[in-house]
Amino acid sequence: MLERNVETFIGCDASYDDARIVLFGAPFDSTTSFRPGTRFAPHAIRSESFGLETYSPWLDRDLEDISVFDSGDIELCIGSADKALDQISERTSVILADGKVPFMIGGEHLVTLGSFRKVFRKYPDVHIIHFDAHTDLRDDYLDVKLSHACVLRRCHDLVGDGRIHQFGIRSGERAEWQWARAGHTDLHPFNFDGLAQVVEGLGSAPVYFTIDLDVMDPSVFPGTGTPEYGGVTFMQLIEAIYTVCGKCNIVGLDVNELCPPYDQSGASTAAACKIIRELLLSVNYK
Amino acid sequence: MLERNVETFIGCDASYDDARIVLFGAPFDSTTSFRPGTRFAPHAIRSESFGLETYSPWLDRDLEDISVFDSGDIELCIGSADKALDQISERTSVILADGKVPFMIGGEHLVTLGSFRKVFRKYPDVHIIHFDAHTDLRDDYLDVKLSHACVLRRCHDLVGDGRIHQFGIRSGERAEWQWARAGHTDLHPFNFDGLAQVVEGLGSAPVYFTIDLDVMDPSVFPGTGTPEYGGVTFMQLIEAIYTVCGKCNIVGLDVNELCPPYDQSGASTAAACKIIRELLLSVNYK
Amino acid sequence: MLERNVETFIGCDASYDDARIVLFGAPFDSTTSFRPGTRFAPHAIRSESFGLETYSPWLDRDLEDISVFDSGDIELCIGSADKALDQISERTSVILADGKVPFMIGGEHLVTLGSFRKVFRKYPDVHIIHFDAHTDLRDDYLDVKLSHACVLRRCHDLVGDGRIHQFGIRSGERAEWQWARAGHTDLHPFNFDGLAQVVEGLGSAPVYFTIDLDVMDPSVFPGTGTPEYGGVTFMQLIEAIYTVCGKCNIVGLDVNELCPPYDQSGASTAAACKIIRELLLSVNYK
Amino acid sequence: MLERNVETFIGCDASYDDARIVLFGAPFDSTTSFRPGTRFAPHAIRSESFGLETYSPWLDRDLEDISVFDSGDIELCIGSADKALDQISERTSVILADGKVPFMIGGEHLVTLGSFRKVFRKYPDVHIIHFDAHTDLRDDYLDVKLSHACVLRRCHDLVGDGRIHQFGIRSGERAEWQWARAGHTDLHPFNFDGLAQVVEGLGSAPVYFTIDLDVMDPSVFPGTGTPEYGGVTFMQLIEAIYTVCGKCNIVGLDVNELCPPYDQSGASTAAACKIIRELLLSVNYK
Amino acid sequence: MLERNVETFIGCDASYDDARIVLFGAPFDSTTSFRPGTRFAPHAIRSESFGLETYSPWLDRDLEDISVFDSGDIELCIGSADKALDQISERTSVILADGKVPFMIGGEHLVTLGSFRKVFRKYPDVHIIHFDAHTDLRDDYLDVKLSHACVLRRCHDLVGDGRIHQFGIRSGERAEWQWARAGHTDLHPFNFDGLAQVVEGLGSAPVYFTIDLDVMDPSVFPGTGTPEYGGVTFMQLIEAIYTVCGKCNIVGLDVNELCPPYDQSGASTAAACKIIRELLLSVNYK
Amino acid sequence: MLERNVETFIGCDASYDDARIVLFGAPFDSTTSFRPGTRFAPHAIRSESFGLETYSPWLDRDLEDISVFDSGDIELCIGSADKALDQISERTSVILADGKVPFMIGGEHLVTLGSFRKVFRKYPDVHIIHFDAHTDLRDDYLDVKLSHACVLRRCHDLVGDGRIHQFGIRSGERAEWQWARAGHTDLHPFNFDGLAQVVEGLGSAPVYFTIDLDVMDPSVFPGTGTPEYGGVTFMQLIEAIYTVCGKCNIVGLDVNELCPPYDQSGASTAAACKIIRELLLSVNYK
Repeated sequence: MLERNVETFIGCDASYDDARIVLFGAPFDSTTSFRPGTRFAPHAIRSESFGLETYSPWLDRDLEDISVFDSGDIELCIGSADKALDQISERTSVILADGKVPFMIGGEHLVTLGSFRKVFRKYPDVHIIHFDAHTDLRDDYLDVKLSHACVLRRCHDLVGDGRIHQFGIRSGERAEWQWARAGHTDLHPFNFDGLAQVVEGLGSAPVYFTIDLDVMDPSVFPGTGTPEYGGVTFMQLIEAIYTVCGKCNIVGLDVNELCPPYDQSGASTAAACKIIRELLLSVNYK
Repeated sequence: MLERNVETFIGCDASYDDARIVLFGAPFDSTTSFRPGTRFAPHAIRSESFGLETYSPWLDRDLEDISVFDSGDIELCIGSADKALDQISERTSVILADGKVPFMIGGEHLVTLGSFRKVFRKYPDVHIIHFDAHTDLRDDYLDVKLSHACVLRRCHDLVGDGRIHQFGIRSGERAEWQWARAGHTDLHPFNFDGLAQVVEGLGSAPVYFTIDLDVMDPSVFPGTGTPEYGGVTFMQLIEAIYTVCGKCNIVGLDVNELCPPYDQSGASTAAACKIIRELLLSVNYK
Repeated sequence: MLERNVETFIGCDASYDDARIVLFGAPFDSTTSFRPGTRFAPHAIRSESFGLETYSPWLDRDLEDISVFDSGDIELCIGSADKALDQISERTSVILADGKVPFMIGGEHLVTLGSFRKVFRKYPDVHIIHFDAHTDLRDDYLDVKLSHACVLRRCHDLVGDGRIHQFGIRSGERAEWQWARAGHTDLHPFNFDGLAQVVEGLGSAPVYFTIDLDVMDPSVFPGTGTPEYGGVTFMQLIEAIYTVCGKCNIVGLDVNELCPPYDQSGASTAAACKIIRELLLSVNYK
Repeated sequence: MLERNVETFIGCDASYDDARIVLFGAPFDSTTSFRPGTRFAPHAIRSESFGLETYSPWLDRDLEDISVFDSGDIELCIGSADKALDQISERTSVILADGKVPFMIGGEHLVTLGSFRKVFRKYPDVHIIHFDAHTDLRDDYLDVKLSHACVLRRCHDLVGDGRIHQFGIRSGERAEWQWARAGHTDLHPFNFDGLAQVVEGLGSAPVYFTIDLDVMDPSVFPGTGTPEYGGVTFMQLIEAIYTVCGKCNIVGLDVNELCPPYDQSGASTAAACKIIRELLLSVNYK
Repeated sequence: MLERNVETFIGCDASYDDARIVLFGAPFDSTTSFRPGTRFAPHAIRSESFGLETYSPWLDRDLEDISVFDSGDIELCIGSADKALDQISERTSVILADGKVPFMIGGEHLVTLGSFRKVFRKYPDVHIIHFDAHTDLRDDYLDVKLSHACVLRRCHDLVGDGRIHQFGIRSGERAEWQWARAGHTDLHPFNFDGLAQVVEGLGSAPVYFTIDLDVMDPSVFPGTGTPEYGGVTFMQLIEAIYTVCGKCNIVGLDVNELCPPYDQSGASTAAACKIIRELLLSVNYK
Repeated sequence: MLERNVETFIGCDASYDDARIVLFGAPFDSTTSFRPGTRFAPHAIRSESFGLETYSPWLDRDLEDISVFDSGDIELCIGSADKALDQISERTSVILADGKVPFMIGGEHLVTLGSFRKVFRKYPDVHIIHFDAHTDLRDDYLDVKLSHACVLRRCHDLVGDGRIHQFGIRSGERAEWQWARAGHTDLHPFNFDGLAQVVEGLGSAPVYFTIDLDVMDPSVFPGTGTPEYGGVTFMQLIEAIYTVCGKCNIVGLDVNELCPPYDQSGASTAAACKIIRELLLSVNYK
C-alpha cells in the first residue's frame, strides 16, 4: 500500500490537532489593478521552500521544534471579491475557533480583509501592525470598495482611528497621505523608525500582523506587482519582524503580494520563504 | 508647436467621423480562473502591429484603402465584472448609435457580453458566430455567473436556442457538451466543418462575430491562458474568416484571449495582429 | 477540523485500493547531457492539469468514470543514477505486486529503466513500444552506461532482439542506426508507419509503453531538452496512442522528457497533460 | 463622438502651450555594441508609469501641480546614427525655440549628442553634469565616431576642457581614464563625492543634465545593456538629483540606457519611472 | 602542455586547407527596425549545435564525411552598415580567392549584401535563390539605403532583372509587390511552387543561395524579429533545400535572421542548426 | 589563409607557456539537488566577459599587463560525479606540474573537490579559504557522498580539523552548524568578520581559495541555484578578495555556482566576470 507524497511548506507537517499555527494559501488577485499573478504565490512558496533549511542560524531555532499544519490552498472564487473574502473568513473562523493562530499566504493584499474580519470579531480590541510600501487607504479604487488599494481603509472601517500602525510606507495618493496624517492611522513613512516604541506601547493587546512584501526595496524583492524603490532591506525587515514577534501577542498574521510571474530568478520567492520561516520561528515561540 | 505622436493599430488613423469601423481595447481579465494576463493584449497588439505591413497579399488589399478609428483602451474597472461590462456596453452604444461597427480587442472572453448586449438591443434578430476551443457554456463557474467560462451561456440567455453557431470547440465539461448537443447551440466540434452552410443559411441576418484566438492550435498560438491542443491552423482560421466576412452582414465583432505574458517570442501577438488586419480588410469591404 | 487540500493530477483522486492505475512522478535528470530540467516535469504537470477538463470529446469519456491514484513524486537521489533507478524499481514493484498498472511521469528517459526492470521481472515476455525522436541505443555515453542516451539499449540487454518497437525516430549516431537496422530493434523512422501491423502482431502479449514526448515536432512541443525537428503532430500522436491502447495489453507505461524551464508559454506542459488524460482514458478502459 | 484614449507618461498631459517641460522619447540603439534593446525604453516607461503615483512623499509635491507635455516618441531612422541625431536635434530645436525645457528619454546614450548640440548652440557657456558607470570618452569605437562609447567625447569636442562633470564612473579603458585625469573632464569616480561643491561652483550657469541609469548598481538596476557592479543605490541617486536640480539652472536633460528586454521583473523600468517623476518634480520647480 | 578546447559548429573542425566550405558568423543587426538580436545568432547556433547529431537519417550522410572549417565570427563594426559590409566582403574575398565556398551565418539579412558583392565580382552571371517571408525590395527604408528591408533591392542593383528568384514571400509593401510583379524579380509567393522548374532552368549557372529563416511559419520558427504567419513547414523547407542543393552549382550561401532573444525554448535555434547541417550535407556533396 | 576567431575570457589570450595562471571551465551540475544549470556558467562567463573592460579602476591594473591562458571547458562526463572529478583532477595535475596556478570556473561546488585533491597532493599543508552562504558540511546528501552539499566535508576528510576557514555562512542543517562549531572547521557566520586575522595567521602557507558566488546576497546575485538572503554586498566581497589575494600564497582557486538560467538580466553573470577580473588582477600580482 502506497501513501501519497504530499507537498507542504517545508517542516510544516504537523497534524492539525498538534498544530499551534495553521498555514493556508489564499490564491486570489482579481482586484489587482496593475500586474496580476499573486494567485500563484502560495503554490510557488510551498514548492520553493524545499530550497530552504529548517534551521535558522540567526535564531538558532529549527522548524522541527515547532508544530505547524499547512492546510494547503483554499479554492477561491476567482472573479468575485465578495465570495472570495467570505471563503477566507470561513477558513479563518475554523482555525480561530480551534484556538490556533491563522497564518495566511496571499494573494493580493485584499485577502487580509477576509481573515481580519474574523480576527476582529474574536478580538475586538485588536491592533494592526502593517508593513507595506503603499498606504492602501483609498476609500475606493475606480469605484470599487473591495480593492487591494483600499484594504487598510476597510480595516479602519472596523477598528477606527489609531489602531492601525503602518511602517515603511512610501507610495500613495496625496489624499491618502493627508487622511492618514490627519490622525486616522499611525503612519511611519519609509522605514521602521518608531517600531520599538509602538510595540512597547501595545503591551499584551492582541495584534494582527500583515506584511506586504513590497515593503522591501525592489533591489531585494523585485517579484511583486507594483515595485516601489526606496524601501527597506531584507535584514531590516527580519529585525523588524523579531521586534514585533518577540514582544507582541500575535493572534493572526499574513504575508502577501509575492508575484511569481515577475520573479524569473526565484530569488523573491526564496525571500518570502525565509521570511515565513523566521516568522514561524519567532511568533509565539515557546 | 509640437503634435503628440500617438500610437494606434497600424493604419487605423482615420478620424472618428470618417471611420466605418471603430476599434477599442477592453483590457479586462478579472474572472480568468487559470492564468491571467489578457488585460495586456490590446496594448501589446497595438505596439506589435508596427511589425506588420498594411498590405495583404492574400486579399490584395491595403489598410490604407479603408477607414478605421482606433479609440484606444477603455480604462476598465478591474475587480468588478459588473461595472466593467457596463463600461464596455456604454462604449459599444456610442459606436452603434453613430452607425459604425464596433470591433473590440479583449481581454478575456467575458468582455464579449458587454458588447453583445448592445448589439442585441439594436439587432434583436442577431446571430452569433463563435470560434473557440472551449464551449463557454457553463451556467456558473465556482458560483459566479459572470465568468469567461459562462459567456456564451449568458449570450444564450439573450438569444435563446439555435442562434449561436460554435466552431472549433474541443474542450468543456461533459455537461456543457450534452447541453449544447441537446440543441441549445449549433456546436461544430474540432474544426470549421459546416461553416459554409451555416453562413449560407444566415443570408442577410445580422451577425456578431466573436473569435477566441485559442481556437488555433497551441503550436500556432501558444500565448493564451488555457492552451488546448487539437485546434486549427492559422491558414484554416484565415480561410474561415474570409468565409464569414465575405458573405455575412457583420454588425459587431471581437477578438480575444491573447495573453502576452505567455508569448515570450511575440509570435502569438503577431498572429493576432495579422488576424485583425485580415478581419478589417474583409469585413464589410467595399 | 481542517483537511489538507492536496494537489493531484486532475481527476486522479481515487483511493489506492480502488485504483486500477497508479500514477507517480520520477523527478530525475542527472544524466541529461544537454539541457537539464525534466526533474520539474511531474510537478508542473500536476499543477497545470487544472487547466484541463476531465472530459475528452474525442473519446466521449471522462476521468470521473475511472479510478486512478496519484501517489505523488518519489524523492529521488539526485546525483546517483544507480540509486535513483533502485528507488523507481521499488515503487514499481509495490504497484505491480498489488495488481495495478504503474504509470510513471519522468524525468529524463533513463527513468524508464527503473520501472521496466520490474515489469520485465513480472512479465518476461513483455514487448516495448517506444515513441521517440532519438534512438537511445548508445552502448555508453561519455563512458557512462546508465544514461538517457542508452536507455533502450539497457532495455535491450534485458529483452534481446526484436522485442523493442520504435516509432518516430529521427536522430542518433550513425552507429546506432546501423545497429538497429541490423535487426536488434524494430525501428520505424520518422512517423508511425507500420504501427497498426505491429500492434496487430502483438496480440495479447504484455506491452510496456514508453513515450518520449520529443517524438512530437518542436513546433508542437518545444519544451524539451533536445528538440528535433521533423516529428509528428499532436493529433498523429493521439491517434497512435489510441491504436496502441485500444488493442494492446498494457502492463506499464511512462511519459517523459517534458522540460518545463524551456516551456515559457506552458503549452508543452498542457500538451503533456492532455496526452496523459487520453492515455488514462484509453489504456485498459472498461 | 469618441475621443481617443492616448497614453502619456503619467500626469504629463498638459497642452504644449501650457507646458514648461516637454518630454520626448528617442528610441534608438543602433550603435549599442553589446546587448541592444534600449529602443524599447521610452515605450516601456510610458506604459509602466501607470504603476506609479503622481505624488512624491519625499518632496511632498505632485505631478498634478506642474505642467508637462509628453510629445511621444520620435520615429527615428534606425540604422543611421547621423540621421537619427539630426532628427533628435530638430525636435530639441523646436522645444528650445519655444522657451521650454527638453527632457529626452533614451535610447542608448548616443542620443544625448543630438539634443546637446542644440542646447550648446543656444547656451554656448553650458556645462554638463553626467552621471554614469562608464567614461564614454573613447575617441572612436571600432573605428566609429558616433557611438554610445564616445558620446561624452563628442560633447567635449564642443565644450572643451573642464566643462564636463562626471560622477559615479567605474568603467572604461585605461586610456580613457588617463585622458580624463589629464584634465579634459572633471571625473569623480565611483560615487557622488564632490557633487555639492561642483553644483555650488556652477552658480547660475546653464547646465545640461544627462543620466545614464547604469550609474546605479546592478543590484538596483539590472535592466541595462552593460551592468557594472560597484555603483550607487537608488536613494543615493535621488539625493544627488535633488542636489543638482535644487540649485542648478537646468536647460535640458535626459535619462537613458534602460534596456527593457533585460528587465523581466519590470523593477528597473519602475526605477526609471520614479527617477523621471522626481526629476520632473525638482527641476526648475516653482 | 594544454591545448585550448575551441568551440566550432559541430563536426566542422577541418583545417582551413582541407576545407571545401568555410563557415563564418556575421553578428550584425544595426539596421533591424523592429526587434534586434540577430547579432547573437552565430554564437547561439555554434553552442546549440552540440545538441545535434552529425548524422542525417534523411540523407544517410554524416558531417564526419565532409570537410568544413568554421572560422568563427567576424568582429563587426556595430553601428555602421557601410563598414560592417566591407568587413564581410573582405572575409568572403579571401574564401573565394582560395577556391572555397563561403557559408555565412547572420545576423540580419543585410549581411547578404557584403558577401554577395564579392560573389558577384567573381561570378558576374550569378543568380540568387532567395527564400524569405518578406520581399526585401524597398528602395530605401526611412531614408536609409543599406537596410535589411532593402537587401534584395541592392542585390538587384547589381544583377538586374530576372536573376533573383524569390520563394515563400508573403509580406511587403504594396509598392514592392507591384515592382516585383512588373518583372524585376521572379517572385513566387507563399510557398515553393515552381522551384523545381527554376532549378532546372538554371542548369550549371552559378547560384548564390540566401535563406531568411523567417520563410518558415512562426509556429515552426518563432525566434525571429518579424514573425509572419502563413509560411512553410520545416520539412517543406528541407525538401526545397534538397531541390536546390541537389542540382544547382552553389557558389556561396547564407542563413540569417534567427533572433535568439525571442527563442526562449531554444527550438528555433535547433531548427537553424539542423537546416545548416542539411545544407552542409547536400551542397556540392561528393 | 584564415585564422579561427577563438573566444576566451576577455584579455586571457596568453600562450600556455607564457601564462602564470590557467583558467578552465568545469561545466558540471549533476548532483545539484534543487535547480540545475551551473553547467552553463563557464560558457556564459566567457561570452559575457566581452561586456567588461580589461582595466580595473579600483586596482589601477589591466589584464593586458598579466599573462593568463584560458584553456576552455573540460568535456565532463555528465551523470557520473566520480568520473567528472577524475577529469578535473587530471586537468589540474597538468597545470600544477607545469608550475602554474589552476583557476577553475564551475559548475556546481562539488567540482572544487576534483581540483583540490591534486592541490592537496602537491601542497599537503594547504589551507582552504571558503566563501559561501552554505556550510557544505553534510557527510552525505540523500545517501550520496559526492554531492555539492558535502564538498567541504570531503575536503575536510583530506585536511582535517582547523584548516578550512569559512566566511559568510548563513545556511545549513543544525547538525552541520554543530559539527563545525565543535571545532572541525573555522566557521565565521554571515560576513567577513575575522578574515584579516585569519589571513595574517596563515602567513606564507599555501592556500586554496574557493568562492561560492552565493555568498553574495540575492539582491546582488540572484542568478544561483539556491539563493540565500542575508549575504554580503558586491563591494564587501571585492574587499575580502583583496584581503585574501593581497597577502596569501594562493596555489589554486575556483569560482562557482553561477546558474545562468536564473539570470535573465545577465547581471549575475556580469558580477561573476568582474569578480574573476579582480581575482586575476590581485592574485600573485607582480
